[in-house]
Amino acid sequence: MEPLRFAENKLYLLDQRLLPARVDYVECADWRCVAGCISRMVVRGAPAIGAAAAYGMALAALEYGQESWPVFSAALEEAALGLKSTRPTAVNLSWAVDRMRAAAAGLAERAPREIAEQLAAEAERLARQDVDTNRRIGRFGAELVADGARILTHCNAGALATVGYGTALGTVRAAVEAGKKVHVFAGETRPYLQGARLTAWELLREQIPVTLLADNMAGFLMQQGKVDQVWVGADRIAANGDVANKIGTYSLAVLAAAHRLPFYVAAPFSTFDLTLQSGAEIPIEERCETELTHFAGIRVAPEGILCYNPSFDVTPAALITAIVTEYGVIHHPDAEKIRAFFREHEYVR
Amino acid sequence: MEPLRFAENKLYLLDQRLLPARVDYVECADWRCVAGCISRMVVRGAPAIGAAAAYGMALAALEYGQESWPVFSAALEEAALGLKSTRPTAVNLSWAVDRMRAAAAGLAERAPREIAEQLAAEAERLARQDVDTNRRIGRFGAELVADGARILTHCNAGALATVGYGTALGTVRAAVEAGKKVHVFAGETRPYLQGARLTAWELLREQIPVTLLADNMAGFLMQQGKVDQVWVGADRIAANGDVANKIGTYSLAVLAAAHRLPFYVAAPFSTFDLTLQSGAEIPIEERCETELTHFAGIRVAPEGILCYNPSFDVTPAALITAIVTEYGVIHHPDAEKIRAFFREHEYVR
Repeated sequence: MEPLRFAENKLYLLDQRLLPARVDYVECADWRCVAGCISRMVVRGAPAIGAAAAYGMALAALEYGQESWPVFSAALEEAALGLKSTRPTAVNLSWAVDRMRAAAAGLAERAPREIAEQLAAEAERLARQDVDTNRRIGRFGAELVADGARILTHCNAGALATVGYGTALGTVRAAVEAGKKVHVFAGETRPYLQGARLTAWELLREQIPVTLLADNMAGFLMQQGKVDQVWVGADRIAANGDVANKIGTYSLAVLAAAHRLPFYVAAPFSTFDLTLQSGAEIPIEERCETELTHFAGIRVAPEGILCYNPSFDVTPAALITAIVTEYGVIHHPDAEKIRAFFREHEYVR
Repeated sequence: MEPLRFAENKLYLLDQRLLPARVDYVECADWRCVAGCISRMVVRGAPAIGAAAAYGMALAALEYGQESWPVFSAALEEAALGLKSTRPTAVNLSWAVDRMRAAAAGLAERAPREIAEQLAAEAERLARQDVDTNRRIGRFGAELVADGARILTHCNAGALATVGYGTALGTVRAAVEAGKKVHVFAGETRPYLQGARLTAWELLREQIPVTLLADNMAGFLMQQGKVDQVWVGADRIAANGDVANKIGTYSLAVLAAAHRLPFYVAAPFSTFDLTLQSGAEIPIEERCETELTHFAGIRVAPEGILCYNPSFDVTPAALITAIVTEYGVIHHPDAEKIRAFFREHEYVR
């Protein structure tokens, strides 16, 4: 089960809106289709939309590969802006687009057709690296998971949210591969139910024990001593370690702190946005009200009701026990540690 | 809009499962129908199910009013046990049944037919008192609500959860009646969506400003300084002030404490269970998994998934700013204050 697959100059995106009822792929022959799929959440999850956007850039290059350089580069720029504007919060999206832009710029003397081929190869590299990155995150993360651990997670930071393997769920997978027994509690994650529809499905398929609960049950579960750790992914991490992630993450972090439970964030370097000093600067997407007022097309809330529907929230670094990256673990993250960690690993965005 | 209505020896229960799409009443001619309606949540909310159960006892008495005393009293006892066994957490249910039992016992020399008439009158008194009680709670509660207050509430502790007016929403109503501007944030209250379906509907009808949000958004709302107070109802309050209420209440109380927001519980004396030392002794109902796995008959979670679905949780007294009753406000409740308060108001269960 792959969330995305590129073949014969087409990107196939697993339609995550239909899961778990149906496994179906949307075929995208151009970047506009990819942008639409990101907007409409056919594909979701910060690393997965990053990879999809990279392929979107490749599709734009292939589409205009027969054109003159000015037409070609203008088309690439249009695709870059169009892809970036689909969803505001996850920084992996612009990271991936910018990486593709930089690759194109580095090839500027070549013929557009050749650049297009190179960009397709670059998108493939980015996608393959994502899986490798997740496996490395998983190995570091698994060291923090005790045998028998009961792990609460939120949303889907799994194979479906990435090109494969997952970040928070990558850690769960790595712990299981290391022979540890774990039990996952998956918050259903209103309003879009990524926990109920995606995380539950993904873990069940691999026979990793998982129990579904409504988001508002997490506190009671912790109060009863039924959770050992919380693991989530991230959509953007500011320079000071503040983490934007799926709405509800902040509530879980407060609850974890109140119950003295470790709260872990698993995310690749590409999720860090060191241009932002703190989480207060991260743009938070608000999505349409029907996500709350309707369910599978059926109205559940009364006509005329006002809604508040932010898709993400910001968890301050002070509530985070550690951020687990592909280069290792940043314990009790703050601006200084993160800066030092990036320097140490000579990572340049 | 009345959640229950008694006329010509029949109890009409507003079918709260159909709201807000349809306003429809279930007609109950005997106690078994009433018990079924409580189990299946046609009627819900601690005070409302108490009143429904009282009418259920009256219906049992009317049904067997032509029988001999032994048959009549055995039938009443059967109804009492049957009604009490429908839902375990809200104590108003057994409080109301026991009040009806005591009324019957006090009339034991009379003819069953006469007792039955008296019990019907007693159920009417209990129902009328509930509305009066709520208005008194509302007046005390409204004193704690500043003009312009932004109030977060959970589930439905409104007119629909009582015989009328409501407890937590009774306070909102009383504040509005006193000329204060308020804005209510209603958590949708998964899995049963009492907030989206009932609270939103109830407040919209009275043009009290209300915004709907998913339960997991409450923390982010508080973090942004958009909430001033939290108000909830209760299903059972132990002698030490621990409060059982709709699942998710405990999480909100922890979040409120973390954001230094007052957390108020509005409930009548009939919700206290002084036989229980603490909330740990309160039985917590777990309901069926389909509440989480299905929506309006549509499966959303994968087949075979395990679920955790407690309907209530327990908020420790230490997290409660005040409990507002029909006799006044118990600030920072504890066992001693509650005992003193009950003694002062000479309230005997």
